[in-house]
Amino acid sequence: MKKITIKSPATIANLVCGFDVLGLALEAPYDLMTLELQDQPGLRIEHADGFGLPTIPEENVAGAALLAMLEQVSDAPGMKLTIDKRIMPGSGLGSSAASAAGAVFAANQLLGKNFSTNDLIRFAMYGEKVASGVKHADNITPCLLGGVSLIRSILPLDVVSLDAPAMFITVVHPQIEVRTSDARQILKKEVPLKLAIKQWGNIAALVAGLMQGDHELIGRSLEDVIIEPARSILIPGFDQVKKACMEAGALGGGISGSGPSIFMLSKSHQTALEVEQVMQEIYRNIGIDFRTYVTSLNKKGITITATLS
Amino acid sequence: MKKITIKSPATIANLVCGFDVLGLALEAPYDLMTLELQDQPGLRIEHADGFGLPTIPEENVAGAALLAMLEQVSDAPGMKLTIDKRIMPGSGLGSSAASAAGAVFAANQLLGKNFSTNDLIRFAMYGEKVASGVKHADNITPCLLGGVSLIRSILPLDVVSLDAPAMFITVVHPQIEVRTSDARQILKKEVPLKLAIKQWGNIAALVAGLMQGDHELIGRSLEDVIIEPARSILIPGFDQVKKACMEAGALGGGISGSGPSIFMLSKSHQTALEVEQVMQEIYRNIGIDFRTYVTSLNKKGITITATLS
Repeated sequence: MKKITIKSPATIANLVCGFDVLGLALEAPYDLMTLELQDQPGLRIEHADGFGLPTIPEENVAGAALLAMLEQVSDAPGMKLTIDKRIMPGSGLGSSAASAAGAVFAANQLLGKNFSTNDLIRFAMYGEKVASGVKHADNITPCLLGGVSLIRSILPLDVVSLDAPAMFITVVHPQIEVRTSDARQILKKEVPLKLAIKQWGNIAALVAGLMQGDHELIGRSLEDVIIEPARSILIPGFDQVKKACMEAGALGGGISGSGPSIFMLSKSHQTALEVEQVMQEIYRNIGIDFRTYVTSLNKKGITITATLS
Repeated sequence: MKKITIKSPATIANLVCGFDVLGLALEAPYDLMTLELQDQPGLRIEHADGFGLPTIPEENVAGAALLAMLEQVSDAPGMKLTIDKRIMPGSGLGSSAASAAGAVFAANQLLGKNFSTNDLIRFAMYGEKVASGVKHADNITPCLLGGVSLIRSILPLDVVSLDAPAMFITVVHPQIEVRTSDARQILKKEVPLKLAIKQWGNIAALVAGLMQGDHELIGRSLEDVIIEPARSILIPGFDQVKKACMEAGALGGGISGSGPSIFMLSKSHQTALEVEQVMQEIYRNIGIDFRTYVTSLNKKGITITATLS
């Protein structure tokens, strides 16, 4: 194979009560990435979008992930990576994970699939480190595997794919900036044991609800008593959006990753569309630009759209 | 029905990483309880064991639970409750829950099954309050329902039964006293967020492991970075027992409830028996009296052994 094009999906990390350990893949939005063998050695990065992201491999999320992988490959060939980013950077929808995971997935295909999924996750985390300073896998894993992923541990890496029923996801991305580092700094380093117990009761019930296909239990478990109260103040309109979406029939939802996007899960496509209306109306009234997405759970993760042999 | 005899099983609360929210029912040991209609009004309690527990209903765990239930029944008949307790009080094996849950289960049968399982859990928690000062449901729920129970919330009550694979449980009860109130006081009121995240990753993975029937994942998830480090110092030999049992092939384990019993899960009966040998040897060497049990997961909860119409 000389050239491969893949689709790398957006993801929602944390899933409200699963801070740092849960993530879910979306059907849309997604990035398109093409990786191509080159005669000249080294790695070249080009962008087919207008975001102005770095092209120096070490400074680029996809590049850093690829370089971590290529260190493990003897006689690595030259490659050109073209990124058509459609997941807005800084949206809280796993834009950096899509780049990092997509790049190593594509390279693994191009180089003959020698690396395991866990290897790919480890390489891709080097990209996340470039993006946010922290190695985390709660976007990368669902991006690669699809569905809902649980990251029990990073060191040693221990990830679990969770069954989940069909669900529809509505996302609103208010066009404000919340830096991941700011979102991390706002969290207290100590939490009351009482709240921690409530949180682990909720995450346990969320996992049970997902695996039992019990939408109502999923909804009741989407409660975050630790992170959301701190972080939601960084997102104008958050409380209003959440309340109105629940009234419109959403099962539940919260901050996507470290924000500013807000997501809501719904049992039906119709409800997900009504939830979108509610979100649009609120941000129109507040006067903040926004984008919305109505999509469904992506069960496949990264997919190949074209290859050239 | 005039008379009913039931078997009310021992339970293991917390399950290592599920402090206050998980519990599991054992096939053995169990209490036997007989509830009988009487011509004279009121509630009489008799003991067929030698533990010298209270007979005044308000002061008795089973009595307090029954009284909470009878408040909701118009024209409640007189009843006599005979308790043959075989789960040692203070063992950390849900002795009080077996009494409280057993009493209300039996009364519900005798009075015509008018109350839901959630009602019975609520009544039985009055018994737990007498025993430990705190209403908790992580022993009561698996005692009533069997298998593994998750208590997402007490107020409002929200319990979930979790599928689980066949497992064997070895328990050692060193004959020392650990009061539940002491075991609670030793816990810090604040916990580091980092450890809380680790804990909720583990409980999420434990739930997934149970539901997927993945014994190895169950084993890896039986890790408690918050409660066990504090409480295990109240149990002589704990670290040694845990280490030796893991070496003998146990999947994992820890403190049962608030102790002093220690439990270990194993995939096979043979391993569970070898784990028992290890436990016995250690407490013989330490010089503390003990009891051990090798049993399996109880999937039925409380069962009726005899009725008289």
